Amino acid sequence: MQSRQMKFGVILDGVGGPSWAWRREHIEPTASTDINAYIAEAQSAEAAKIDFVFIADTLSITPKSSPHFLNRLEPMTLLGAIAAHTSRIGMVGTLSTSFTEPFTAARQLASLDRISKGRAGWNIVTSAIESAAHNHSQDALPPIDDRYRRALEHVTVVRALWDSWEDDAFVPDKVSGRFFDQSKLHALKHKGEFFRVDGPLNIARSPQGHPVLFQAGASDGGRDLAAKTGDAIFGVGRTLEDAKEYYDDIKRRAKAFGRAAEEIVFMPGVDAIVAETQEEAERKYEEACAYVSYEESLSWMSFFFSYHDFSKYDPDELFPDVGDVGQNSYRSVTNYIKGVASREKLTLRQLARRFAIPRTDFIGGAEQVADACERWFKAGAVDGFMLSASVGRLQDFYDLVVPILQKRGLFKKDYEADTFRGHLGLPPVPNRYTVAREGGRGRD
Amino acid sequence: MQSRQMKFGVILDGVGGPSWAWRREHIEPTASTDINAYIAEAQSAEAAKIDFVFIADTLSITPKSSPHFLNRLEPMTLLGAIAAHTSRIGMVGTLSTSFTEPFTAARQLASLDRISKGRAGWNIVTSAIESAAHNHSQDALPPIDDRYRRALEHVTVVRALWDSWEDDAFVPDKVSGRFFDQSKLHALKHKGEFFRVDGPLNIARSPQGHPVLFQAGASDGGRDLAAKTGDAIFGVGRTLEDAKEYYDDIKRRAKAFGRAAEEIVFMPGVDAIVAETQEEAERKYEEACAYVSYEESLSWMSFFFSYHDFSKYDPDELFPDVGDVGQNSYRSVTNYIKGVASREKLTLRQLARRFAIPRTDFIGGAEQVADACERWFKAGAVDGFMLSASVGRLQDFYDLVVPILQKRGLFKKDYEADTFRGHLGLPPVPNRYTVAREGGRGRD
Repeated sequence: MQSRQMKFGVILDGVGGPSWAWRREHIEPTASTDINAYIAEAQSAEAAKIDFVFIADTLSITPKSSPHFLNRLEPMTLLGAIAAHTSRIGMVGTLSTSFTEPFTAARQLASLDRISKGRAGWNIVTSAIESAAHNHSQDALPPIDDRYRRALEHVTVVRALWDSWEDDAFVPDKVSGRFFDQSKLHALKHKGEFFRVDGPLNIARSPQGHPVLFQAGASDGGRDLAAKTGDAIFGVGRTLEDAKEYYDDIKRRAKAFGRAAEEIVFMPGVDAIVAETQEEAERKYEEACAYVSYEESLSWMSFFFSYHDFSKYDPDELFPDVGDVGQNSYRSVTNYIKGVASREKLTLRQLARRFAIPRTDFIGGAEQVADACERWFKAGAVDGFMLSASVGRLQDFYDLVVPILQKRGLFKKDYEADTFRGHLGLPPVPNRYTVAREGGRGRD
Repeated sequence: MQSRQMKFGVILDGVGGPSWAWRREHIEPTASTDINAYIAEAQSAEAAKIDFVFIADTLSITPKSSPHFLNRLEPMTLLGAIAAHTSRIGMVGTLSTSFTEPFTAARQLASLDRISKGRAGWNIVTSAIESAAHNHSQDALPPIDDRYRRALEHVTVVRALWDSWEDDAFVPDKVSGRFFDQSKLHALKHKGEFFRVDGPLNIARSPQGHPVLFQAGASDGGRDLAAKTGDAIFGVGRTLEDAKEYYDDIKRRAKAFGRAAEEIVFMPGVDAIVAETQEEAERKYEEACAYVSYEESLSWMSFFFSYHDFSKYDPDELFPDVGDVGQNSYRSVTNYIKGVASREKLTLRQLARRFAIPRTDFIGGAEQVADACERWFKAGAVDGFMLSASVGRLQDFYDLVVPILQKRGLFKKDYEADTFRGHLGLPPVPNRYTVAREGGRGRD
């Protein structure tokens, strides 16, 4: 019997997320809007049997935003293009529950699932930046609890819309003129706190039934939302201990919501720097550090603190008390930073640098990084990893680490499933109406 | 000097719009969600040097909806995939101003324009079906005048967002770390009746600056909106006389809004049935008619009358008085039908049939159809045509009519421009802020 294997996703982010990332030697400054570059990246990931590519998003900018934030392709149109030039790899796009209609989100994701033949995923975000509200006809970002309540209702509606058509609803018969079985088409008639959606959705149930739902909830409310609705969870996991705590907590919460532990996979984001040897990797790390001035690392950190102006503090004093700044935005990130600051007694300069280019278990020679992956996986702290390369290169990971993990039997040598849900080992999602007809109980 | 040439767009609509269209022999019942079929259609159109493909849309269904409406791909994800498999042809997607945020629409279209390297267009619709409101958290469709006011504000915001970045705003210099020229990034700070949008948009100005704006306004308010905001107008034009009236009217209105007549092209939708000979075309027409039962033609017509139940009337009596039904939806279509009914004293059965499969100038042998195109074009009634094939086949038009028009010098033998805007002979849209700096006045 096949033993459990780890999963890998990769974040495609053009010139790279951090403010300084575009200055790296191998980066084309136009990469964040270059469709050919994105397609090539997705194809390289597919050649390495990576389970999925992931497109993050933000919905507002200021002149201080990172280059990748300033000028990037929109996820759904981008993934439509990638879908048409790949055949096996999953693809996850970000759509905000705060600024989209469930009907639109359900359609675009179902359509992407159809275009990709069962490879779509949705990164569910509630949007954490005040200025995003100002781009979407709202004068203020709703409080975090309201955003989570809206998110839960939004996702609930989207999932119900995806079940509008039972899988065998279409029975086209040109002779009789019958196109579908009307008993297998279901309107929703939803009226909730935030949405009214009658349905049904105007697209057949997609190959996966429900595209894979991603969540990064880190706060208490966020973890509940993730455990209730998510198929795949990323986010926290800077150390093995952090990851293990999160893994156990999220699976416990999922069970409390009536789900099996295997119905949810946890894959923390890690920024890997890999080389043939440890020394070479350390050289790459130092090289990367050289790109990041103090000002740039401050600017990158300040994004998570609602663009708080850190330049007014003395860089060589202890990390300042910034009060509640950022509490309605990236709460878990800012709490993490404050925690490290007080625990390790770091100055602002030290902390900014540490945050810009983290020292993780995943910097090293190929064998070392493979060992780290195996250690985390076997400790029951993760089901896999979501890789980014704001410092290193994804291709180095594919070339150097993937073959080692394959040889160890920890990663697949080829795609084994037909759908993204299958790649992640997630169970199929039966249509709720079909289940009900057969006397069972579907997931809602 | 090159004399003026006609333009052609084609509607890609899977199994076909009318309720009976999917029953035609050559149609695969899954065509409306088959990405490979869409890509092949777009590539065939591109091989014939057609100027653009066009994706219509609807936002709600009932069990009575046409098969293509019941189960179709969403336009933006679909066009992302088509963009990645074509290189010259323009592509127009439908997004409703009633149920989208301008920020989202601006991003998706700019992204599509970037992915396609300057080939995107937007079919601006206000959505005319009450039930669409019920899928988007509204209890009622706003009155037509409100929808048009919202549409005008929406489009105004989208256009302004597209100018957020001046064309030469990005000046990436890895050595200095300067990525862009801050004086060339512009926030919008829009607060209007329907929208608040601060901006700026988080994607560079797209290759066309502004994707091509399509409008089908037919009512008085709709014509004004089209003349004010549209680059390309389709819609009415069932007869040469109708088309000529519309053409003159829309160009007159455009001039009244300070635009040149050449800044707007009129391309009515025509359903062509072409064969090698007139007799063969007539045979195809009769063949098509055989697919359409009386019930099906009623069902198709009733869609435009808010699903009014016509089956309760005697089919062989004169077309019934249905009062105001449909006046807040497809007003111009229903007025047209009523006009024909009273002018020609047609029974319900005759009218339903006539509406299902219209008798137009574009049914005939290849030379005859080419003659009709030339006649309409030279009469100054049209700038081109938007072809559909709910009865005939687009490929027949490409194979039989296009070469004749090319030989006559009325249609290009190859693409001559780099962008969709260029294909249509429309002037470039300079960035308003660049124009203002240089002392001119941009289009807003």
